Amino acid sequence: MFNNESNLEDYRAIDWTDNKIIILDQTLLPNKEIYLSIEHWENMIEAIKSLRVRGAPALGLAGAFSIALAAYEFSNMPPKIFIRELENAARNISNSRPTAVNLSWAIKRCMNSIANISNPKEIYAKLLNEAKMIQAEDIAANIAIGNFGASLFEHKTTILTHCNAGALATAGFGTALGVIRSAWKQGKINEVYATETRPLLQGSRLTAWELEKSGIPVTVIIDNMAGVMMSNKMISGVIVGADRITANGDVANKIGTYTVAILAKEHSIPFYVAAPASTIDFEIESGKDIIIEKRDGEEIGSLFGTNIINKKTSTLNYAFDVTPNHYIDAIITENGIAYQPYSITLERISR
Amino acid sequence: MFNNESNLEDYRAIDWTDNKIIILDQTLLPNKEIYLSIEHWENMIEAIKSLRVRGAPALGLAGAFSIALAAYEFSNMPPKIFIRELENAARNISNSRPTAVNLSWAIKRCMNSIANISNPKEIYAKLLNEAKMIQAEDIAANIAIGNFGASLFEHKTTILTHCNAGALATAGFGTALGVIRSAWKQGKINEVYATETRPLLQGSRLTAWELEKSGIPVTVIIDNMAGVMMSNKMISGVIVGADRITANGDVANKIGTYTVAILAKEHSIPFYVAAPASTIDFEIESGKDIIIEKRDGEEIGSLFGTNIINKKTSTLNYAFDVTPNHYIDAIITENGIAYQPYSITLERISR
Repeated sequence: MFNNESNLEDYRAIDWTDNKIIILDQTLLPNKEIYLSIEHWENMIEAIKSLRVRGAPALGLAGAFSIALAAYEFSNMPPKIFIRELENAARNISNSRPTAVNLSWAIKRCMNSIANISNPKEIYAKLLNEAKMIQAEDIAANIAIGNFGASLFEHKTTILTHCNAGALATAGFGTALGVIRSAWKQGKINEVYATETRPLLQGSRLTAWELEKSGIPVTVIIDNMAGVMMSNKMISGVIVGADRITANGDVANKIGTYTVAILAKEHSIPFYVAAPASTIDFEIESGKDIIIEKRDGEEIGSLFGTNIINKKTSTLNYAFDVTPNHYIDAIITENGIAYQPYSITLERISR
Repeated sequence: MFNNESNLEDYRAIDWTDNKIIILDQTLLPNKEIYLSIEHWENMIEAIKSLRVRGAPALGLAGAFSIALAAYEFSNMPPKIFIRELENAARNISNSRPTAVNLSWAIKRCMNSIANISNPKEIYAKLLNEAKMIQAEDIAANIAIGNFGASLFEHKTTILTHCNAGALATAGFGTALGVIRSAWKQGKINEVYATETRPLLQGSRLTAWELEKSGIPVTVIIDNMAGVMMSNKMISGVIVGADRITANGDVANKIGTYTVAILAKEHSIPFYVAAPASTIDFEIESGKDIIIEKRDGEEIGSLFGTNIINKKTSTLNYAFDVTPNHYIDAIITENGIAYQPYSITLERISR
């Protein structure tokens, strides 16, 4: 079912086989590793909404495969009905998580690719081809990021990473974890510490699972432990992913990233960000202009159905924070590594 | 059942009434507020071991009340048998949590107080009196800490606190929360942010509960959120308790305290420590000599019976960290406030 190129991992969060979409149900990790075989496009909407698939690049691919699946299901319809149903499906898939830009971006790209075709079976073939291109491009970008990033590490580095920026969040290989994978293959990684990453525990549930799958030594710590480990000289480098990078190199990423960056600076430990160039948003000058999403306090107030806070107690739940560029030692993209001043170097590597 | 002096709270984690010990079962907070009435000293050992009572000063009082309860139960025995049984109970209570110094300290103090008495009923009366003195002294110390500490705050301070250093961890009123209570009564507190404090969630489970009980506005945040809140200028002061303070003013406290201290310094926010003078350990010169306790990885690996990490995954679980004295703006004790250089000022206020 999976591509087994030697430099890829043997699992994919999302893939296509025999006119079905295969997804690894991430809501069940790490306790159960269950791959779902999805035959109907409407079931993909449920999978996206319930976070069985997550991670911005992985969601883009999920959207592309979903519209291909819809075209396959509709392919025996008369052309006019086919195109009406396909456009309806595209709209519904796009709206399944309105905040994830990658989802609507991928569907737009796929639908644009069929602008001049009318035969349903041809359209299906074209859509599937476009989805597989998105998949291949994302994996290629991640491998490039991995190779560039690994060049920054020395033999026997002990890395701290926060949240999950791995194969599970992308089409494969991962961004921050892609760098760790490449560095591991080059014999440069001693061990990885994964912060558990409250509130949704992507570090303990997903990053630890991924690294174990790849045979890379990993130890989970609570977020509160990063400081004392750095002061005990147990960490020699930090690498994280990014949700958005502004033109001046400020980085929005999972809540807690800013704290890790400050800790790294205080202990003179390099702090790196790995992300595809498409994450750089040149429309936004600095992190001050990024609006930070507040999420439901329920994510803080209860765990697996047990309340840990009185129902009436106030909570505040920012999903992201912004790390100013002066805490960041390098930004690693598939086009190369950017250093300060980022307002010049990011533009240069994106040309 | 409780002392209702106007400047005390209307709950106590541990108290004595009608020859019984009353404890608030902290394992059930905040979902259930259940006071247990304990009539047999052996049941107190279970309560201590299973963390129904916790917090160093509260454990000292628990030990003192336990030995008084044992004396009451044995009081009709012949004097020789009585003293043999009492010494056996003292040993067992002392050993119920061997790492908590306060427990054995309190029992030693109580047993020393009866050195020259032989009548069982007189011994019981003396032991109960000694326990009540420990209780009154701890509360008085906390109120003094509260008043000294409140003088450091200005009108409308928004405070961040980490873990629980409140009435629940002491005989009453609390240390860091004692300062917050006093400052609140003086109209100086705008709001309190309580970090949830992984892994055992004393912030969300206990600190939020305590502050709500006292009508002080509190909002729970995850530990990962302290950094971004400081950068958004939402925090104007930090206050925490201490498990041990070395002669030079380094402070061992709940894991994550060091991180909060670094964040406070980076954002030029004052960082205060509140603790009774008995917490200062003049035998230890600096924090480098404190051995940090590692606890069971199960505290990180599962939550309320649900695994969040593969059983085989490595974890590391330090219970405490050490904050070097240069991050600390003041140390508040019942004898007054110490400032840098702590190696001189701590000794002076302890004379």
